[in-house]
Amino acid sequence: MAQHAPFSGVLSPVLTPFDRNLNPDTDRFVDFCKRLLAEGCNGLAVFGTTSESNSLGVDEKQALLEALVAGGVDPAALMPGTGLSALTETVRLTKAAVHAGCGGVLLLPPFYYKAINDEGLFTYTSEVIQRVGDSRLKIYLYHIPPVAVVGWSLPLIERLMKTYPETIVGLKDSSGDWNNTKAVLDAFPGFGVFCGSEIFLLDTLRNGGAGSITATANINARAIRHLYDHWQDSNADALQAGVTAFRKALQQKPAIPAMKALLAHAEGQESWRAVRPPLQALNAEEGRQLAEALKPFGLAAAAE
Amino acid sequence: MAQHAPFSGVLSPVLTPFDRNLNPDTDRFVDFCKRLLAEGCNGLAVFGTTSESNSLGVDEKQALLEALVAGGVDPAALMPGTGLSALTETVRLTKAAVHAGCGGVLLLPPFYYKAINDEGLFTYTSEVIQRVGDSRLKIYLYHIPPVAVVGWSLPLIERLMKTYPETIVGLKDSSGDWNNTKAVLDAFPGFGVFCGSEIFLLDTLRNGGAGSITATANINARAIRHLYDHWQDSNADALQAGVTAFRKALQQKPAIPAMKALLAHAEGQESWRAVRPPLQALNAEEGRQLAEALKPFGLAAAAE
Repeated sequence: MAQHAPFSGVLSPVLTPFDRNLNPDTDRFVDFCKRLLAEGCNGLAVFGTTSESNSLGVDEKQALLEALVAGGVDPAALMPGTGLSALTETVRLTKAAVHAGCGGVLLLPPFYYKAINDEGLFTYTSEVIQRVGDSRLKIYLYHIPPVAVVGWSLPLIERLMKTYPETIVGLKDSSGDWNNTKAVLDAFPGFGVFCGSEIFLLDTLRNGGAGSITATANINARAIRHLYDHWQDSNADALQAGVTAFRKALQQKPAIPAMKALLAHAEGQESWRAVRPPLQALNAEEGRQLAEALKPFGLAAAAE
Repeated sequence: MAQHAPFSGVLSPVLTPFDRNLNPDTDRFVDFCKRLLAEGCNGLAVFGTTSESNSLGVDEKQALLEALVAGGVDPAALMPGTGLSALTETVRLTKAAVHAGCGGVLLLPPFYYKAINDEGLFTYTSEVIQRVGDSRLKIYLYHIPPVAVVGWSLPLIERLMKTYPETIVGLKDSSGDWNNTKAVLDAFPGFGVFCGSEIFLLDTLRNGGAGSITATANINARAIRHLYDHWQDSNADALQAGVTAFRKALQQKPAIPAMKALLAHAEGQESWRAVRPPLQALNAEEGRQLAEALKPFGLAAAAE
């Protein structure tokens, strides 16, 4: 690991709880973040895809970030997603994150225009870095082509790392393609590479990666952290098989509504099921069935 | 045409001029909007894809809209793009448009999540309509799957029209697929259907459509309007061939940087070339060459 990389281990892209009017439930959000850290998350990638970040306004995200810090969450453990489609809004949210003391930010590429080349993405990222203008800024590139379509290529990553070696410190690979994660790991030893699914956690660590930023850490943090802590032990493959089985059982349903329904079921808090459209909530019965299906995989630990 | 449809004819998705710091050049924007109306545009679809709308923040768009109205542009001629990926921001900008007296709004579907079904999009659109809560709201659905990926299907359009007959009044089809435009025209007679490229203008009008909302209207408004005014004349096909040839000549280069470079060249205003990253500006020489290439197609009229 490069010494300048501030994060390693298991990070949760934190689900955003809403109230009945679909406004962020700030108190529950702060409590949930504290609980995830207590359950073993090494950090919190708030405002990720799993957080419905792009269904939230910039003002809403800034208010949630302030509430987290005011609520006593260590900002050094926070890696908020700050990459929006508009340069000016990306700069605004990234500045807010740096000023709040966040350990890093997770940067989506601008994702509206699709026929974009590396030169345009390099210019965009340079503008962000220069406009934020703060040496504390540490950027993790967020590569999620199945959703954002636009992504970070290997030549672009290399160019950004060479141009901004103190700022471009890592990448989250949510391509779902292990070959891509492996290529990044092989090309850039010491780069802070996180797999976007814990299914690849052991492979990532064995190839010099930093850890996993994974949706499932919202409901299975303890087990994933246990694997991270014991990845060099003789039973590591068995631990990996356990978290992989849990993930695959969860994937029967769309992940965000499914995890919210599970939390609603476990906590008896109906409003946990709420998602902002265009996502669609599961109903209470679906939540109950999913909880039942996950029992054999150790959901109990998450729903304590 | 249904009597409740407020727009017909040729609308320009107005290019957004920037200053040297890539901030919107408000004065030039207001002047340019007035000029497009003077050149024959029936309306202005500000904040469209061609406007780099999703490279602008909500605050920036709201300020530009206020400046337009304060600057004397008739708000009834405005159809701003107000569909953003976050429900709350879409509601905020749509409310601002309605309160400013805009004739309608152009609504992109929420475009971040990709595995979205019609039910989720229906719920989203319903939430927007109910939260805006104003009978003056007239929505044109913006269908541009090559960029937004997410789009408006025929069954969804039908459901929205039936549920909100006074609000869902039309659609801009930028699919680039005439078969889709034709299917919408055939399915919903009287619906305010605009083709997203003037290449299909005559076909659209002959099939009962409302007109075209087209990027090229930024630099070729007179000719496209002339075709619109004379679509039932005996020489209409020749007029169509003329605007089609212009469009095809322009398409040698990416449309937004190309049109900005042409305006910079025609007006001797270097800063017109500026685009926000991730788009990339053409250089002055490329602008000159493009102007040369377009001369045979009547660019002179646009650059008067």
